[in-house]
Amino acid sequence: MAILNDNFRKVKESYLFSTIARKVNEFKAANPEADVIRLGIGDVTNPLPQVCTDAMHKAVDEMATREGFHGYGPEQGYDFLREAIAKHDYQARGANIQADEVFVSDGAKSDTANFTDMFGGGNVIGIPDPVYPVYLDSNILAGNIDAIQYIGCSAATGFAPPVPPTAAEGKGHAGGDIAAAGEQRMDIIYLCSPNNPTGSALNRAQLTAWVEYARAQNAIILFDSAYEAYISDPDIPHSIYEIDGARSVAVEFRSYSKTAGFTGTRCSYSVVPKDIQATFADGAQANLHAMWNRRQSTKFNGAPYVIQKAAEALYTDAGRAEVAALVGYYMENANAIRKCFEDKGYEVFGGINAPYVWLKTPNNLSSWEFFDFMLENCHVVGTPGSGFGENGEGYFRLTGFGSKENTAEAIRRISKI
Amino acid sequence: MAILNDNFRKVKESYLFSTIARKVNEFKAANPEADVIRLGIGDVTNPLPQVCTDAMHKAVDEMATREGFHGYGPEQGYDFLREAIAKHDYQARGANIQADEVFVSDGAKSDTANFTDMFGGGNVIGIPDPVYPVYLDSNILAGNIDAIQYIGCSAATGFAPPVPPTAAEGKGHAGGDIAAAGEQRMDIIYLCSPNNPTGSALNRAQLTAWVEYARAQNAIILFDSAYEAYISDPDIPHSIYEIDGARSVAVEFRSYSKTAGFTGTRCSYSVVPKDIQATFADGAQANLHAMWNRRQSTKFNGAPYVIQKAAEALYTDAGRAEVAALVGYYMENANAIRKCFEDKGYEVFGGINAPYVWLKTPNNLSSWEFFDFMLENCHVVGTPGSGFGENGEGYFRLTGFGSKENTAEAIRRISKI
Repeated sequence: MAILNDNFRKVKESYLFSTIARKVNEFKAANPEADVIRLGIGDVTNPLPQVCTDAMHKAVDEMATREGFHGYGPEQGYDFLREAIAKHDYQARGANIQADEVFVSDGAKSDTANFTDMFGGGNVIGIPDPVYPVYLDSNILAGNIDAIQYIGCSAATGFAPPVPPTAAEGKGHAGGDIAAAGEQRMDIIYLCSPNNPTGSALNRAQLTAWVEYARAQNAIILFDSAYEAYISDPDIPHSIYEIDGARSVAVEFRSYSKTAGFTGTRCSYSVVPKDIQATFADGAQANLHAMWNRRQSTKFNGAPYVIQKAAEALYTDAGRAEVAALVGYYMENANAIRKCFEDKGYEVFGGINAPYVWLKTPNNLSSWEFFDFMLENCHVVGTPGSGFGENGEGYFRLTGFGSKENTAEAIRRISKI
Repeated sequence: MAILNDNFRKVKESYLFSTIARKVNEFKAANPEADVIRLGIGDVTNPLPQVCTDAMHKAVDEMATREGFHGYGPEQGYDFLREAIAKHDYQARGANIQADEVFVSDGAKSDTANFTDMFGGGNVIGIPDPVYPVYLDSNILAGNIDAIQYIGCSAATGFAPPVPPTAAEGKGHAGGDIAAAGEQRMDIIYLCSPNNPTGSALNRAQLTAWVEYARAQNAIILFDSAYEAYISDPDIPHSIYEIDGARSVAVEFRSYSKTAGFTGTRCSYSVVPKDIQATFADGAQANLHAMWNRRQSTKFNGAPYVIQKAAEALYTDAGRAEVAALVGYYMENANAIRKCFEDKGYEVFGGINAPYVWLKTPNNLSSWEFFDFMLENCHVVGTPGSGFGENGEGYFRLTGFGSKENTAEAIRRISKI
């Protein structure tokens, strides 16, 4: 008799987006003439950059010939793309990352979720709250529900995840087991900067403190920088490898979804530096890069050739200009949304280094109450913050990913109420 | 301190293809003028069908416009493709499979490996020997090394996996625990038909026996039919759902890799019928379709729109004709290889319902000894059967996926020795 994985019973059904869809449909049925503007989900609206579609047409033509045909590619990605990533996304910013430390994949969602394959039992897993829900759900599916330590984020720190104290800070014991001193031990730490949904971003000092914490604890940081292209503040690192010492403690996840509109085109990458040594339960050492390589070789067959050629094109001068234009377009929307709510006296986060605007609901409305208020009075759909964790209750997310026209119209309506 | 997954230490490093590459390189260095022909790996050589490249060009053009742009798609695949699959691959053969039971993915390797997420501890996992190595490796990574029950395949049964006896066969006890009667219990069973590497295919009677076994044991069959398009014998089912009762016990994996040359284009699908109920350790029931849907929604973001459009095009009349031509091309190669060895008096399997020819080495040579013999005397590269399991020792795999010209030249050389 086949026995199923019990952990599937522990993961909560996500009713967030289905409830949003139901409420919107009910509203539209009752108000058929209402022009509802959706600034809720994190999907983009602009077409693919022309460099990408040009590159894809060319790659498709190659695939139509015996000479240009590409069969099985390397599971780790083609060298042409890995080299472009290492050079432009890392070495150009002074981060020492080599092409063979880059693993091209079909999405940051897949990679962050699949990384749960790497770790054994006994870890304490730090997950910020609020944050992108995949870290939590994939860990629950992996059997880690009792190992999760939420890293509470709040308005007091601008929604940046606070670093726990360590022995290095003079707490009276010499490293190792900080839990014994009543401090917080974490072995695997998810950080998302710029953060989805709050738009907060870790500055150099904050990120340095996290790297030092991880080094002191022999912890591993899983750093999701899918929104790094939206950073405008020069004090905010785009990569964790801009921080000294990160090569031995941090994995980084990136995506072309929001920078180049690849949400339906699917390409991303993970960086696993060769310096990360970790241990098995019996103390034997292993190299995380070699393990991820084994995982990907066994359970994945690489991203499509045509798609990798599209991603490569983004590193040309023309490609970089098109990405900058897309990012600028969405950030103009986000800035405008932010300003609109600031002008009305709301407490607002994000919208500066991220396409997400995160606002405190007025009059202590719950996230869902404010959702209803916005839908009924402005015909604007956002995302209740409570969908991203308990600390998101009383907050609301709007995104800059709509069209300029829809965003302007939404702001016009919001300003009037 | 981060603790790693101990199961990674249990999976054997695969030296098969790296050893082949090293031996070939050494041979070429010593014999620079030799024209080495590779009939070893399972990759294809012909370009993508024109219906696919036409569809991809059209889809890329859509993605270049705001109106035609596709962002996040359904994790389960677009309806246009799921409907084409259900209609043409299943309903047209009398198999009752609905579109919403089809999950489109990036590869049968990913899907077969990821399916280990579904199951808990305590299962006995049946894996044929020899077979495609991903079933074994992914189960070892999932912590199931001690749960694996090899299903030994041999020349005596034409390399078809033998069905264990069940209570239903009058062994004197009334179902349920056949292990108590000294019989073989399996809870999760991998079947690959037509088989990689042996080319054997389960006929209707054999597949029916497996379905009845699974139904008697409440087991689940994971049926990999990636090579179904190569079946020529009308008594061999293309889908397990051609067998009565399979809907409640079988998952089926398919791929466009070998039918349409998608090895570098990446599209596949899994069928998880809604009739499969299984149990958690405490006896509570759950629906496998709902669980796989949850898994894919949490850990996967769908296959690229452009690629799914390419797959859809294969179901047009022109697409089906192009696939038939590709399959015919490779099968002509496989038939010719088979005939060549038969004429020389070898014991040969496969090459009739599969693009793989599986032959017994002469004079009790080991698989690797015959590899060396073929490389040195014919300058032809094949795959040692021992790389697919212990029962593959003394066998050798050749594939029909080379070009017609190279295959003919290889056969000319082999015939002469």
